[in-house]
Amino acid sequence: MSSHPFDTALHLTPDFGATPDQFLGLTSPAWWNMVGPFGGVSAAIVLNAVMMHPSRLGEPVALTVNYASGLIQGAFKVMATPVRTNRSTQHWVLALRQADASGVEFVVLTGTAITAVRRETWSANDMPMPEVAPPDSVARITPFSKAAAWLQRYDMRPVTGALPSTWDGGASSDDPQLASLTQLWIRDEPPRALDFASLTAMADVFFPRIWLRRSVRVPVGTVSLTVYFHSGVEQLAESGTGYLLGQARGQAFRNGFFDQAGQLWSTAGTLLATTHQLVYYKE
Amino acid sequence: MSSHPFDTALHLTPDFGATPDQFLGLTSPAWWNMVGPFGGVSAAIVLNAVMMHPSRLGEPVALTVNYASGLIQGAFKVMATPVRTNRSTQHWVLALRQADASGVEFVVLTGTAITAVRRETWSANDMPMPEVAPPDSVARITPFSKAAAWLQRYDMRPVTGALPSTWDGGASSDDPQLASLTQLWIRDEPPRALDFASLTAMADVFFPRIWLRRSVRVPVGTVSLTVYFHSGVEQLAESGTGYLLGQARGQAFRNGFFDQAGQLWSTAGTLLATTHQLVYYKE
Repeated sequence: MSSHPFDTALHLTPDFGATPDQFLGLTSPAWWNMVGPFGGVSAAIVLNAVMMHPSRLGEPVALTVNYASGLIQGAFKVMATPVRTNRSTQHWVLALRQADASGVEFVVLTGTAITAVRRETWSANDMPMPEVAPPDSVARITPFSKAAAWLQRYDMRPVTGALPSTWDGGASSDDPQLASLTQLWIRDEPPRALDFASLTAMADVFFPRIWLRRSVRVPVGTVSLTVYFHSGVEQLAESGTGYLLGQARGQAFRNGFFDQAGQLWSTAGTLLATTHQLVYYKE
Repeated sequence: MSSHPFDTALHLTPDFGATPDQFLGLTSPAWWNMVGPFGGVSAAIVLNAVMMHPSRLGEPVALTVNYASGLIQGAFKVMATPVRTNRSTQHWVLALRQADASGVEFVVLTGTAITAVRRETWSANDMPMPEVAPPDSVARITPFSKAAAWLQRYDMRPVTGALPSTWDGGASSDDPQLASLTQLWIRDEPPRALDFASLTAMADVFFPRIWLRRSVRVPVGTVSLTVYFHSGVEQLAESGTGYLLGQARGQAFRNGFFDQAGQLWSTAGTLLATTHQLVYYKE
């Protein structure tokens, strides 16, 4: 097994004695966020169960993960069940569960995924990569909080829409199209060749849009994350250990929830994934 | 029961003798598309099971539905299971199943939903409604296919990006930001007061982006649909039977799948829902 911290976090043991759909894992301190592991790595873990499943058909095209309750430090169980297999697509139902102190199991994550055998077709990119300065000319940010270990797992270089330096409640921009926009270069630290799991985690690296929008650090938590994969293994291999350009923008903030729409391009400008999430916020 | 065709399609009978999570329904010919019912109404049906569930907490904030196999004419069963209930949010696992000729059940839809008790908070709209001509100054389109009965269930008025009139394989625009863009006014026909179910269905009314993009009618099918609800019952009530402005745009088209990102605003400009889908295409 690779000793890269991402592979350590992703590590699952098949529990095929129970069912081929069941895998056992352990939370990884290197990925801790304020009150639990970084959500992107949890999403990557359930996708990894699909990737490891002996009956898998094709590669991931869609993943939705819902954060039902906090993941506590320790052991967990992942269920990845192929409920329908067609000629070229396969539908998965996903769950991550833990046991409380008295051994009673509870649901931490729910989710669904679709894998598919992809064939070469007519293709187009209607969301070209924004023209921005290359990664080596953009300063890397240093993690703002030692409490959030996962921030040290990435080399992040914000082009625009960095975390506010002062929490003064001032709007970031008068233009609604820019007010909650972040663009940043990102790669694993230390570098690691891109795969579906790491692409999934990177879809969740953007700090909460409402912090940027309001310059107020209100309590937040992602409740649902969707990733659409537009890349096969070939495009991921082309990306290698290079930087991705990530872009995220809020659309609506209302009564305790906001959404985020995002894109991830390879350095060469290939749109590898599009992503959306819904985030709870307080106040 | 209302005799509106949407309410007919939505009608479910609780099968509480089995479990409070189970509901029985029947496909509705008025909503037929080429090879099965309009996908938007299927998504609305599973959401309706959540709405009818005796243990529901709050209102929908997120819904994901995956189209695993074709819905055949006749009876179906919907399962809506609240797998985790927190103080203000509730997580649902959804499925729609049918039995084949020999009585064997198969999965038609998988899905997840989140409901939540929403409270008034700071709010903002970073995706303002585009400035377009009002609905009464835009011509209503007449359905292009009698085979697709569901098209007659909507009053649709395309502002831009209407279905191509010639299928000549020509690109709709040289500008990638516009090439797969549709904006249209829409409401139920006959008019019906907006609710979460009808808003869900309207999130799926856009014809396939690839038809607009290429002016070629390649075979297509939605595989996954997500709707984020930014509106409570109050905003829906304000919208009443008025038109919504819908906007949809493709981002990536590659090797058999494309995605669509969309928004639905009330006539007054409130962003009621944002939506995304992944669509299979051939060639």
